[in-house]
Amino acid sequence: ATADSGIPAAGAEVAFQFLHSELVSFLLREQLQGGGGGPATVQQCRAQLSKLETMGFRVGQAYVEKMTKDLPRFRDDLEIVKFLCKDFWASLFKKQVDNLKTNHQGVYVVIDEKFSLLVPMARGKQYLDRCHLYTAFPCGLIRGALTNLGLRAIVTAEVEELPRVKFQIQLVQHSA
Amino acid sequence: ATADSGIPAAGAEVAFQFLHSELVSFLLREQLQGGGGGPATVQQCRAQLSKLETMGFRVGQAYVEKMTKDLPRFRDDLEIVKFLCKDFWASLFKKQVDNLKTNHQGVYVVIDEKFSLLVPMARGKQYLDRCHLYTAFPCGLIRGALTNLGLRAIVTAEVEELPRVKFQIQLVQHSA
Repeated sequence: ATADSGIPAAGAEVAFQFLHSELVSFLLREQLQGGGGGPATVQQCRAQLSKLETMGFRVGQAYVEKMTKDLPRFRDDLEIVKFLCKDFWASLFKKQVDNLKTNHQGVYVVIDEKFSLLVPMARGKQYLDRCHLYTAFPCGLIRGALTNLGLRAIVTAEVEELPRVKFQIQLVQHSA
Repeated sequence: ATADSGIPAAGAEVAFQFLHSELVSFLLREQLQGGGGGPATVQQCRAQLSKLETMGFRVGQAYVEKMTKDLPRFRDDLEIVKFLCKDFWASLFKKQVDNLKTNHQGVYVVIDEKFSLLVPMARGKQYLDRCHLYTAFPCGLIRGALTNLGLRAIVTAEVEELPRVKFQIQLVQHSA
């Protein structure tokens, strides 16, 4: 059999993908069990999204802390976002982002055509309508990474077709 | 700052460690919330252990499937266990196991002096008494890997001092 899935040869990043995928499935099962099998309520969705986002946030914080502890400080916001899109992305997802745009007013749009955390899920269409459970963790991951580098941000994601994702990063200006 | 933690430079295996650590913390918090803050009951512990073990099992299965899809079949049980202790371990944990013993009757004892999934937890002593929550996922991971390679097994773990772990793998003979 040849490698036709586009996933790189097995390495820890693949285990990271699988673990994320299992985590989403797990919270999905929990939700279905709690909700009696019917469609999830908005409150249930929010609760599960929040759990995933928080886990992503903490992993992102810890990971970027470890990645950058011996690096010099970044000069500005753009340098931080570029670090995120190149080094952080490459280290976790084995590729850089495919596109980065900014309005130069604190909004960055990041596009990954084949976002590795969603590759295992791209096979199961049942995820597509499930409250965006599959992007909550990555959004948290990015927000945690940026927070650790001194940038507060609101991070949202849009998925039209798995595994393509568009992340929007809106920097929150410091009041000080 | 020099790297003094013994963890390899950040890579996806570190993210895998952090995600596992977050998962354990998350289930721990859930347990504490559900249990009113008192010590967890045996039933509560079992439920959380089982969730973690199941997630580990699925990740182990999927990961080893991916690792071995282009490899020739293994000749015997020992070859499979050796693959687990060398290639599987190195790929996920960036080191091989430190010791492998067998009684040649289907029992294998695997020792890792610095088990990477427990490194983030070795800092927080509060985990030590918590129902072995921190070894349930790795036991499932090993069991899932072996199952995918055709070996049914019972996998248990002992931790006397984090991050040293002794895994015991007891192969279950096929009845056929």
